[in-house]
Amino acid sequence: MADKITSRQQDYSQWYIDLVRSAKLADYSDVRGCMVIRPNGYAIWEKMQAALDGMFKETGHVNAYFPMFIPESFIAKEAEHIEGFAPECAVVTHGGGEELAEKLYVRPTSETIIWSSYKKWIQSYRDLPLLINQWANVVRWEMRTRLFLRTTEFLWQEGHTAHADPEEAQEEVIRMINVYRTFAEEYMAMPVIVGKKSESEKFAGADATYCIEAMMQDGKALQAGTSHNLGQNFAKAFDCQFQTKEGVLDYVWATSWGVSTRLIGALIMAHSDDKGLVLPPKLASRQVVIIPILKGDKEEVRAHARFIAKALNKHGISTFVDDSENNSPGWKFAEYELQGIPVRIELGPRDIAEGKCIVARRDTFEKTEVLLDAEMTENIEEILNNIQQNLYERALQFRQDNTVEATTWEEFKAGVEKGFVIAHWDGTDETEALIKEETKATIRVMPTDEEYRKQYNMDEPGTCIRSGNPATQKVVFAKAY
Amino acid sequence: MADKITSRQQDYSQWYIDLVRSAKLADYSDVRGCMVIRPNGYAIWEKMQAALDGMFKETGHVNAYFPMFIPESFIAKEAEHIEGFAPECAVVTHGGGEELAEKLYVRPTSETIIWSSYKKWIQSYRDLPLLINQWANVVRWEMRTRLFLRTTEFLWQEGHTAHADPEEAQEEVIRMINVYRTFAEEYMAMPVIVGKKSESEKFAGADATYCIEAMMQDGKALQAGTSHNLGQNFAKAFDCQFQTKEGVLDYVWATSWGVSTRLIGALIMAHSDDKGLVLPPKLASRQVVIIPILKGDKEEVRAHARFIAKALNKHGISTFVDDSENNSPGWKFAEYELQGIPVRIELGPRDIAEGKCIVARRDTFEKTEVLLDAEMTENIEEILNNIQQNLYERALQFRQDNTVEATTWEEFKAGVEKGFVIAHWDGTDETEALIKEETKATIRVMPTDEEYRKQYNMDEPGTCIRSGNPATQKVVFAKAY
Repeated sequence: MADKITSRQQDYSQWYIDLVRSAKLADYSDVRGCMVIRPNGYAIWEKMQAALDGMFKETGHVNAYFPMFIPESFIAKEAEHIEGFAPECAVVTHGGGEELAEKLYVRPTSETIIWSSYKKWIQSYRDLPLLINQWANVVRWEMRTRLFLRTTEFLWQEGHTAHADPEEAQEEVIRMINVYRTFAEEYMAMPVIVGKKSESEKFAGADATYCIEAMMQDGKALQAGTSHNLGQNFAKAFDCQFQTKEGVLDYVWATSWGVSTRLIGALIMAHSDDKGLVLPPKLASRQVVIIPILKGDKEEVRAHARFIAKALNKHGISTFVDDSENNSPGWKFAEYELQGIPVRIELGPRDIAEGKCIVARRDTFEKTEVLLDAEMTENIEEILNNIQQNLYERALQFRQDNTVEATTWEEFKAGVEKGFVIAHWDGTDETEALIKEETKATIRVMPTDEEYRKQYNMDEPGTCIRSGNPATQKVVFAKAY
Repeated sequence: MADKITSRQQDYSQWYIDLVRSAKLADYSDVRGCMVIRPNGYAIWEKMQAALDGMFKETGHVNAYFPMFIPESFIAKEAEHIEGFAPECAVVTHGGGEELAEKLYVRPTSETIIWSSYKKWIQSYRDLPLLINQWANVVRWEMRTRLFLRTTEFLWQEGHTAHADPEEAQEEVIRMINVYRTFAEEYMAMPVIVGKKSESEKFAGADATYCIEAMMQDGKALQAGTSHNLGQNFAKAFDCQFQTKEGVLDYVWATSWGVSTRLIGALIMAHSDDKGLVLPPKLASRQVVIIPILKGDKEEVRAHARFIAKALNKHGISTFVDDSENNSPGWKFAEYELQGIPVRIELGPRDIAEGKCIVARRDTFEKTEVLLDAEMTENIEEILNNIQQNLYERALQFRQDNTVEATTWEEFKAGVEKGFVIAHWDGTDETEALIKEETKATIRVMPTDEEYRKQYNMDEPGTCIRSGNPATQKVVFAKAY
């Protein structure tokens, strides 16, 4: 049963920790900065993996697996890459009881080890494109960790593609950030802003980084996925050339893109409440719990509960019955609210006599009566669809309510304490750094979505919110996880 | 297209390497002893994972994820365990640019890190059983590596369960080795012998190890899966006690069980031939290739091919069309034989006119005519089922043909050069070690399957094949991968 969860209002950070622990989603391990993803948390990851993997395959990608150890000399081949990643790597110096001739880095990301293979596999334009994804664990040494959001080891997928020309690579970059957007919005019920990162925020080794950014319930931003245009940087670092259709040699064009178990943290922070986890039905491994009220003819109540569960499962709605007598219905209500089961069905002898049951929604706590008739499965399905839709709309409304367009520095400073701020920026690293120093807010994204750009007149020229210099566009600022 | 594959007869080891490379299943990487699992190989692993994961869940298990780093002090807690595993570990000594206070071992297996969590999660019999599985990468430093069969890093699943009494733990051990048997026989079409390992071959830290052993086409044995009864060893090492139903404290009973990407090597060695990979249809991500013979009205032939592919896919048979004009039909035949596509359909204008197509089986190369009628999908399905069945029976026949019951030392020595030898053993470590030293053969398994025991009169007392001392039972000897 739930330990007491601190309320969001009282202490948002503590609420998050309490929730993750109480709902048994994850635990810190005895290894510094590493987490244990417990079965309840891992079940969410499995649903995410299944949906994403299907979308990757539909867009022509195949899975493969590359070594997790990267020789030090490989990491060093791409200058920006080593500068960005080497300081946060775990380093293997001994193996099989002996000191290694060359140190091995545990992959923080796999561009280098993968391009050392691509070099062998790609000779001609006929070998392109190469569209490969990998599901793997990666390690980035973190000083300050937070379950799911920032841990030394985490799970992710990383796509690595190779193309014959820059246009095709750029198409891939955009295709995949849009796949992430679709996943975030349609599965996670989490609205995101699609766009580009500023130079200072882009991936170490990329020409350009695209991202999806979401707003959490405390108004902070969370980067939920990235897609990088790597240009010819890694092909040059690994001397990966191919013969073009025209018969000349050129370096291969590359992309990479990834999302991680961080998405579980985003999911929690986007929707959950003071009673526990709130899961969008599409990512709930268990969508409906039936709690029989065991009075009168208990076996008859149980039989009805099982019958309904069977019908719902047959209809593709993942349902289970908790008919244990160790715990009271009230205890069970609280427990499954904590676990984020989207729909609870209460069923007692009187309900059965009246041919109905009580259906409680996790998102709104609204209770309705549903008839135990031939349309029941469809009615429950509709409720699940409504929950999915409502979570998205609620989160979108929240984001809109907590986004301000700042025209003064005072508005800006107040705005980033509360949510996203849309403001003019002069385009310089210096101003960006200054704003970060003074407010802890960073440029989260330079939106590329037309609708979003129009909504906030992002293309309107103006003066920079901090420097007062001319600015050609507005960008989105926020504090971030 | 295929590089030339060495024939099995000429050089079995080279045949294996050639096949793995030519069919693009895996590649050595630039990291010592580590492999790249290429998309064709990984697709097999994905099919294996899906089938096994389903079977684990049906038997009540859930997935979770534990850190891959294990503090040195944890490994040291179970005496036999550290002795067995420490010498083959990769060791992280630096992280985030600094030397670590305590070295971290990259997991060679996860008993220790998992039991350090179980200790926190288990207080009472109500918390038991705990039935958790993990899909992960592990590292065991190997001096002599072979793609899939023995590499420094490999992928696997490891189940770790906790129970309130030894009977339930033993039931779990047997349940899971039987799950592996079912998987090996029904999906991999690979007959296996189920049984116990001798003391010297059991897992470091286990009271007993059960295994499934398969025969490869060179007569060698391959251990394809293990299930360990860990007794209270790890619970004691991690001081994991629970309150029993009777209200007293006791140590928790444990099991662990695993299979790895080694199964892909087993699959190759069990069925494949000099033309390339032979895949059982249940593990083929692509089961049927349609090769249109592009003569006459090419577009009409193509349209028919696509129509058939659509019908087969709709029926749940994974089918694709190769209608490229860059390569000849003959080239395609060889290429898809190399890749192990179970069924090839050839379809030319004359076939279409006659309302039929040619269906070629990968396992027997047999060609039959199949009518392009309403029963076609079912006929193809039947052929796929026949292939699955035939591969199993062929492998079983091969195993029987290459198993000898030895009653003299000469017979024994000749037998282990060819396959499995069933012989009396006096039950001592000394004799076992002597036999290994003299013949390189080891005790692969002490069968527990009644049918197998009867077939070879394993319970018949006799005299030890090597020492001449009294022996209460026969066991299975072989050279092994």
